[in-house]
Amino acid sequence: MNNWNDLQKALVDFRDERDWEQFHNPKDLALALSIEAAELNELFLWKKSEEADVQKVKDELADVLAYALLLADSYKFDINEIVLNKIKKNAEKYPVDKSKGTSKKYNELE
Amino acid sequence: MNNWNDLQKALVDFRDERDWEQFHNPKDLALALSIEAAELNELFLWKKSEEADVQKVKDELADVLAYALLLADSYKFDINEIVLNKIKKNAEKYPVDKSKGTSKKYNELE
Amino acid sequence: MNNWNDLQKALVDFRDERDWEQFHNPKDLALALSIEAAELNELFLWKKSEEADVQKVKDELADVLAYALLLADSYKFDINEIVLNKIKKNAEKYPVDKSKGTSKKYNELE
Amino acid sequence: MNNWNDLQKALVDFRDERDWEQFHNPKDLALALSIEAAELNELFLWKKSEEADVQKVKDELADVLAYALLLADSYKFDINEIVLNKIKKNAEKYPVDKSKGTSKKYNELE
Repeated sequence: MNNWNDLQKALVDFRDERDWEQFHNPKDLALALSIEAAELNELFLWKKSEEADVQKVKDELADVLAYALLLADSYKFDINEIVLNKIKKNAEKYPVDKSKGTSKKYNELE
Repeated sequence: MNNWNDLQKALVDFRDERDWEQFHNPKDLALALSIEAAELNELFLWKKSEEADVQKVKDELADVLAYALLLADSYKFDINEIVLNKIKKNAEKYPVDKSKGTSKKYNELE
Repeated sequence: MNNWNDLQKALVDFRDERDWEQFHNPKDLALALSIEAAELNELFLWKKSEEADVQKVKDELADVLAYALLLADSYKFDINEIVLNKIKKNAEKYPVDKSKGTSKKYNELE
Repeated sequence: MNNWNDLQKALVDFRDERDWEQFHNPKDLALALSIEAAELNELFLWKKSEEADVQKVKDELADVLAYALLLADSYKFDINEIVLNKIKKNAEKYPVDKSKGTSKKYNELE
């Protein structure tokens, strides 16, 4: 097992055993995702990166991924496709010659 | 191409062409992830789920996934492993008989 | 006591008794604020507004305000001034005749 | 003008001129607050605190405060009261002798 379809199936099974689909509208799934993202960030609060507890990072990142996969599933998005398409769009917003070595946002690039 | 590793490679190539690894410490990657999660949520703000622009949902969810994959890569996490492990932990926190049909948090279950 | 300077003083005293100023750089204060904002949002997750626990909303909103006040204090911002200035800017972005009765973002107004 | 109530009045007037109260349920106000908090955090992304644009910090922090004040107004909370009460609760969770000089979370204090 090495792809997101299998992970999505495991997540959907977990959800359906608990009859939770009734709560999982896209708006609340996106909200759940951002709450998990905040819990992930809390592991770095008042700290440097290397001081974060790696096992906890695993768990909180897994929660973020779980809601991202459930949200993608609810729209029947092809994850491969949406990520590769976004990389293409970002390549246009951030041309190599203008964005190399700078963290500036695309609307601040010269 | 249908797995995490290939997407991670595409994202790392994009990053390295721009010499951005110097900015991508885990703390800032987690922060970037939560900012993208907020942009995803903004698509649902003041709206019902079905009123959100689906194309924009694709793009913002892709950005969330991109940072999640880059963060996992920076720690060399195995995505399948961390998500499946977290599902197991959640199965203990949310036993089917107590959590079926309710959206209560695990510490509020009776 | 009825203004933010007195609240800021109470918060700074709390902080200084614990010798926490060393952790309170603006970047981490802003991060703490967004984590508290997520905890506030969690009270509404999978729910309608009226189902949220009002006492918990009080507590989480207070935490958000606390970090907002500490961040303002760290920059010596005048809260009155920054909020009133932003209202003026927003009045230009959202003219009454174009934005009345619509939740559209300013860049989508016609 | 130097208190919360006057700022809340200015914000409510702005809202009512645009007939926006219909969108401002507590769940969406909390969501808006967290989106503004993310925009505030974006000013620090990939940067040290002192590299953030101070004028932009003013504007984004003002937006956070605006939604916090509108949310408090929607519940008719007394801001002084909720913040002072939370400081008292936090003083119990973080006793000076155990929390002095450490950034540990209350459930990790010994």
